[in-house]
Amino acid sequence: MRTIDWVEQAAGDGAVVIVDQTALPHEVRFVTLAAVDDLVDAIQRLAVRGAPALGAAGALGVLLAARQGGREGWSDDDLAAALDRLRRARPTAVNLAWGVDRVARRLPDGEAAVADEALAVLEGDVAANRALATRGADLIEALCGRRMGQGGPGLRLQTHCNAGALACVDVGTALGVVRALHERGRVARVYAGETRPLLQGVRLTAWELDEMGADYRVVVDAAGPSLIARGLVDAVVVGADRVAANGDVANKVGTYPLALAAARAGVPFVVAAPESTIDAATPGGDAIAIEDRADDEVVAWQGRRVGPAGAQAVNPAFDVTPCDLVTAIVTERRVVRPAAGDRPG
Amino acid sequence: MRTIDWVEQAAGDGAVVIVDQTALPHEVRFVTLAAVDDLVDAIQRLAVRGAPALGAAGALGVLLAARQGGREGWSDDDLAAALDRLRRARPTAVNLAWGVDRVARRLPDGEAAVADEALAVLEGDVAANRALATRGADLIEALCGRRMGQGGPGLRLQTHCNAGALACVDVGTALGVVRALHERGRVARVYAGETRPLLQGVRLTAWELDEMGADYRVVVDAAGPSLIARGLVDAVVVGADRVAANGDVANKVGTYPLALAAARAGVPFVVAAPESTIDAATPGGDAIAIEDRADDEVVAWQGRRVGPAGAQAVNPAFDVTPCDLVTAIVTERRVVRPAAGDRPG
Repeated sequence: MRTIDWVEQAAGDGAVVIVDQTALPHEVRFVTLAAVDDLVDAIQRLAVRGAPALGAAGALGVLLAARQGGREGWSDDDLAAALDRLRRARPTAVNLAWGVDRVARRLPDGEAAVADEALAVLEGDVAANRALATRGADLIEALCGRRMGQGGPGLRLQTHCNAGALACVDVGTALGVVRALHERGRVARVYAGETRPLLQGVRLTAWELDEMGADYRVVVDAAGPSLIARGLVDAVVVGADRVAANGDVANKVGTYPLALAAARAGVPFVVAAPESTIDAATPGGDAIAIEDRADDEVVAWQGRRVGPAGAQAVNPAFDVTPCDLVTAIVTERRVVRPAAGDRPG
Repeated sequence: MRTIDWVEQAAGDGAVVIVDQTALPHEVRFVTLAAVDDLVDAIQRLAVRGAPALGAAGALGVLLAARQGGREGWSDDDLAAALDRLRRARPTAVNLAWGVDRVARRLPDGEAAVADEALAVLEGDVAANRALATRGADLIEALCGRRMGQGGPGLRLQTHCNAGALACVDVGTALGVVRALHERGRVARVYAGETRPLLQGVRLTAWELDEMGADYRVVVDAAGPSLIARGLVDAVVVGADRVAANGDVANKVGTYPLALAAARAGVPFVVAAPESTIDAATPGGDAIAIEDRADDEVVAWQGRRVGPAGAQAVNPAFDVTPCDLVTAIVTERRVVRPAAGDRPG
């Protein structure tokens, strides 16, 4: 099962099919998106989310636009406007624009070239995730050697948000690393931060951990740092939405407190992210725009107000972890150690 | 308006009146409790909560028992049994038993003595909170001098959970300090962590800030540290559930990440707590037992499951902030600076 994929339909038509992540963990609901603006809407309501999945969405969105444009007789301007809406559907996610731009470059070569390129993005993501998961698992085994020996008690890992198969086309990044360690029999326990306000941790990561048969516990986000301080965590492994050239990491809000606690406790803090997440054009975290989302995500719960009437929120979707707190960034082709002075970009 | 108080009624009768905190922030519902078992029930369903407020509840409960016993012709055994039910309404709340025992000692001196003692507990709590609030506001003005000058932009404060009037008889501890600064016109903005899993921040603290007319924003708990890192917070002020002799502070889970972020950013981290919170018999935070609460508080929301079927949680109610991260502890009679090497106990 892929989180996002392309299906050919009759008469040269086609559509993007996604697992609607707003319906999990209660229901595995597939949604077929046959128009660019349906895809934009799905991105904005987080039915599809996660940096690599958004890269795939951007790529497939160009193919979708090419098909829809052909069907509806779009002008070049119509097509450009559609791609622009797609590219800007979420501001912090560099992968979305990357996916759009990579496939859009093939538009002059015709629809078959566009389809090849878009599908190559998906295949590339799966292959990259597999390589990343293996490399990350090797790294964590090396970093946490004393708990990994024959008959050792196994690792207690902390993760945040959902950097899993559901955030990618398949496999996952941070959760792909967890999956690889689990398949090696090396995981004793995974702590998953619930990830307020949208609860990707308890809804999506818990669902994936449950599916893979790992021993896991959900924790409120505020509890992660103290679990680390109490010696209950051997390594933190998270994904990234964007990595700056100096190794500063933008990821789901709540990542930075885990990094602070890990650094104080001497626990490895590992970021698992594909090369496409590394933005060499952004010198450091200060230059990363942080998406501020709607108040209602915080002060209401499933449509019911929690706070007083008129309560306002500040709702940043991401935070920035400075490079000196990042033990390692693992990609599909290398390990970079920002805390030791390495620069990824 | 007091969170908990005593009202005299006709013919020598009287009752405890509380603000029912389970109805906040949607409704300010006063509940009159004319029988000991009604008060026990109110404590058990958390209609009254917070260590100082529970001390007052215990104290007033003895007065209530004396009146009810007189009215209903209780035996000494009836009275003793009623006080025992009250004392054990929440077995871990030490202030509750403290309030019961302090006032019960006056039972042999007659009802007037009991009433004097019970009301003295309330007056003492209010007076201590007022002194603490003034001292804390003075301290924060001194620590944040550059933003406090004539025409300065005012302070941006971060707090967590509810250390407000609703946890006490009136005024509050950490939120009492915020209130004092607000009354001096020194507060530009208060960030209130929502405080998962029970949401005391968005339900209770937001309501108190709204009532006092402060400019406030609710944030998810995981966002507080990054707001501090981004330079949006001038001081953090929180309460405490217990302070060890060395200055380690146990408080609502989520306090420690704020302290880590404040220390890194050079932002003052101030704990506002009455002297009764300082436990000289506990040498350090390692000796403080952390209450683990039910999974359902995390993985369900108002009876609806959020995570996958069978999802388990780890749900520590508190965390421990090491003394080296605590700029100051303010009580009703002193300022202690653990990060500078002072010991409160």
